[in-house]
Amino acid sequence: MSDKQNPIVKASSSVPETVVPAGKGTKFQVLISDQEAPHFALRRFVMEPGGGMPNHTNLVEHEQYILKGAARVGIGDEVFEVKQGDVVYIPQGSPHWYEADAEQGFEFLCIVPNREDRIEIVVGC
Amino acid sequence: MSDKQNPIVKASSSVPETVVPAGKGTKFQVLISDQEAPHFALRRFVMEPGGGMPNHTNLVEHEQYILKGAARVGIGDEVFEVKQGDVVYIPQGSPHWYEADAEQGFEFLCIVPNREDRIEIVVGC
Repeated sequence: MSDKQNPIVKASSSVPETVVPAGKGTKFQVLISDQEAPHFALRRFVMEPGGGMPNHTNLVEHEQYILKGAARVGIGDEVFEVKQGDVVYIPQGSPHWYEADAEQGFEFLCIVPNREDRIEIVVGC
Repeated sequence: MSDKQNPIVKASSSVPETVVPAGKGTKFQVLISDQEAPHFALRRFVMEPGGGMPNHTNLVEHEQYILKGAARVGIGDEVFEVKQGDVVYIPQGSPHWYEADAEQGFEFLCIVPNREDRIEIVVGC
């Protein structure tokens, strides 16, 4: 654990991947954790072609940058087609979902504040 | 100006670039600003081949992800060789500088908290 006053330099490829249980073909890495930096955490998500995440809410907002591929992303009642180089802001509490492109897959950075979070899956009716 | 409760989706290419006066061949874009999101801002820096920034300090920490190219980055008394896919954490107040690779240039995301910042150039002796 860093004391948050030491610089950190590391390759993303050196950071362990974790499967997202609620997702489909989705893994993530915590590149800079809430233990390593004082205010926000930097994570990288990789979704296989056709993978994704069901509609859910978080207690914290997301700021995202699309690194590779493309996806359909639902936020509230809107659906967006996003691709490499796009940025996405998802307000705290907004229901959102991801459908990775069936050919390219989808890879993005997702930054969250160092605050308590809870994921709740939105059950459709 | 967003009320911070609306989703945002935009292409990075649609965001205006600003020249960094203290830098050499360096521009940046504020992809998600402190007016658009509550806790931190997402910026993208692009340095031409051979460009860079002199040694300086900020009042805020930086979390960075290297998008393209490579650079030598000095943080405090250490010098790091960084490349695409690397992550960098620069603690608040740490003197740091950048020298973009002479062939590839250097492009990175830099996330900072929504707090007062001040840049001070470190004058060598």
